[in-house]
Amino acid sequence: MPIDVTALVEQARAGRARAVARLISLVEEESPHLRAVAEELAPLTGRARVLGLTGAPGVGKSTATSALISAFRARGARIGVLAIDPTSPFSGGALLGDRIRMHDHATDPEVFIRSMATRGHLGGLALATPQALRVLDAAGCDVILIETVGVGQSEVDIVSLADTTLVLLAPGMGDGIQAAKAGILEIADIFVVNKSDRDGAEQTARDLKNMISLSRKEITGPRWRPPVVSTVASTAAGIDDLMSALDAHHDWLTTHGELETRRTRRAAGEIEAIALATLRSRFTHHGADTLTHLAKQVVAGHLDPYTAADRLLSP
Amino acid sequence: MPIDVTALVEQARAGRARAVARLISLVEEESPHLRAVAEELAPLTGRARVLGLTGAPGVGKSTATSALISAFRARGARIGVLAIDPTSPFSGGALLGDRIRMHDHATDPEVFIRSMATRGHLGGLALATPQALRVLDAAGCDVILIETVGVGQSEVDIVSLADTTLVLLAPGMGDGIQAAKAGILEIADIFVVNKSDRDGAEQTARDLKNMISLSRKEITGPRWRPPVVSTVASTAAGIDDLMSALDAHHDWLTTHGELETRRTRRAAGEIEAIALATLRSRFTHHGADTLTHLAKQVVAGHLDPYTAADRLLSP
Repeated sequence: MPIDVTALVEQARAGRARAVARLISLVEEESPHLRAVAEELAPLTGRARVLGLTGAPGVGKSTATSALISAFRARGARIGVLAIDPTSPFSGGALLGDRIRMHDHATDPEVFIRSMATRGHLGGLALATPQALRVLDAAGCDVILIETVGVGQSEVDIVSLADTTLVLLAPGMGDGIQAAKAGILEIADIFVVNKSDRDGAEQTARDLKNMISLSRKEITGPRWRPPVVSTVASTAAGIDDLMSALDAHHDWLTTHGELETRRTRRAAGEIEAIALATLRSRFTHHGADTLTHLAKQVVAGHLDPYTAADRLLSP
Repeated sequence: MPIDVTALVEQARAGRARAVARLISLVEEESPHLRAVAEELAPLTGRARVLGLTGAPGVGKSTATSALISAFRARGARIGVLAIDPTSPFSGGALLGDRIRMHDHATDPEVFIRSMATRGHLGGLALATPQALRVLDAAGCDVILIETVGVGQSEVDIVSLADTTLVLLAPGMGDGIQAAKAGILEIADIFVVNKSDRDGAEQTARDLKNMISLSRKEITGPRWRPPVVSTVASTAAGIDDLMSALDAHHDWLTTHGELETRRTRRAAGEIEAIALATLRSRFTHHGADTLTHLAKQVVAGHLDPYTAADRLLSP
């Protein structure tokens, strides 16, 4: 049966969960309808605020996401959630874990939650996530939350493409601070010390603030000093503060033209990922014989891989 | 000071650790000397047996690696180890963790251990790991072990490029079996149930064997039935069995022409990663204005990202 893409998009705009899910599946599976879907979605996108949320396992990302959903719902917003689980590299489908943890919102027709596992091909998430985001955006979501475990570079890349990136930490997780020292300052717009009723929460917040002060000199462009917000997501404590911080960052983005800059960067990454995937499929489908021939010469030691790559690229 | 690549490669072949480390740094950093190094290395490679070792955190990968190093050293082999830590996405350098756990071998001049963190750019590990492997191969390593935490697709891709891939599990780690069910059968040549002195070890081994039996029908090409080896790596129990399994798999690879097939596949992946990185840098350096222009149109909703990618690729 042919798929009526226009009708599906129309239904998604009306907030029909089934149509939204169907469209995400179409873009995830790289279906033949992908381009038609992308064309239909293009004029409908750009309205949603995109929030990225990352952190080590165990810091309470799903609980924080759930608390943020409640807070945005209280404002009457329609919300989309993309929960990315890269720890399951082998599954092509979605996982239920996050859905279960977010079951408070499972029956709310104004909340769309989608789990995405790392796909079995190069650039999978880099390709699929922005498209899924476009579907949710076109479906009238006011806010889209992308949540991921911060374990791989590619996942971090995706989350850091959000308008606002939240990095969650929990007290007493030395690793979190270590990772922070190594570089999360660069991607975090807001730090959240979750589980802040635990011992060591104040110390963690203090350490973060010190790091932020020390790193200031390296920042170029308009300055935003990442605030450190303490929360206990399970009881919603501190979520009001977090919402204020999110609003403040959104205002800052708009005022300084940074929203446009970030979204242009996100779109550029998206275009590039599609272009690379296109080229990759050309190598695989049309240049398979050439590639194998070159690979055999490399295995035999007759050619180095850089020279081989040059030959693959030369027409 | 100009680098004498030929002299460095000569010193590495003689087994000088400093030269090996220097060469790996050159290929890791994508130095201007990269191509010269690659050319010098090409005729010297292809001798080493490459073993990949993966598994969830906590199954004892480093201890198993250390036990395997001892076993290969007892045969007089020169050994290289690449310990990949994707859980530290932010650091561009190496981590000391694995080196510390492998300190038994740290002073052995016939053992080269290198930690590699996920690099800060797309395709980083996919580019850097095969080049580091070539350095170790040219440096006369008889065996190269690539060890990684199995958390991300890209890491799994790298490990599965080995001649022989070992998947480690530990008893009582339900997640391991779940992951296994979802697809590690496809990449594992040998399963290792480590910490097999713990409760549930026999059940884990039995579960694995059942899975292997059930999956047989889907395999095409020459058949290798992955054995399930039980070990206690910390006491070297079962390591003799594991060595026998490794030798048996190596014999099988050679007899069936699979070694050549796998190495050709590995080289093809390597060439492709280099070609894609080359194209990517062209987009970034030469096509930056075009890309930004297209990205702005996508942000404005005037263009969908697929059409934009087509325009980027059209000359």
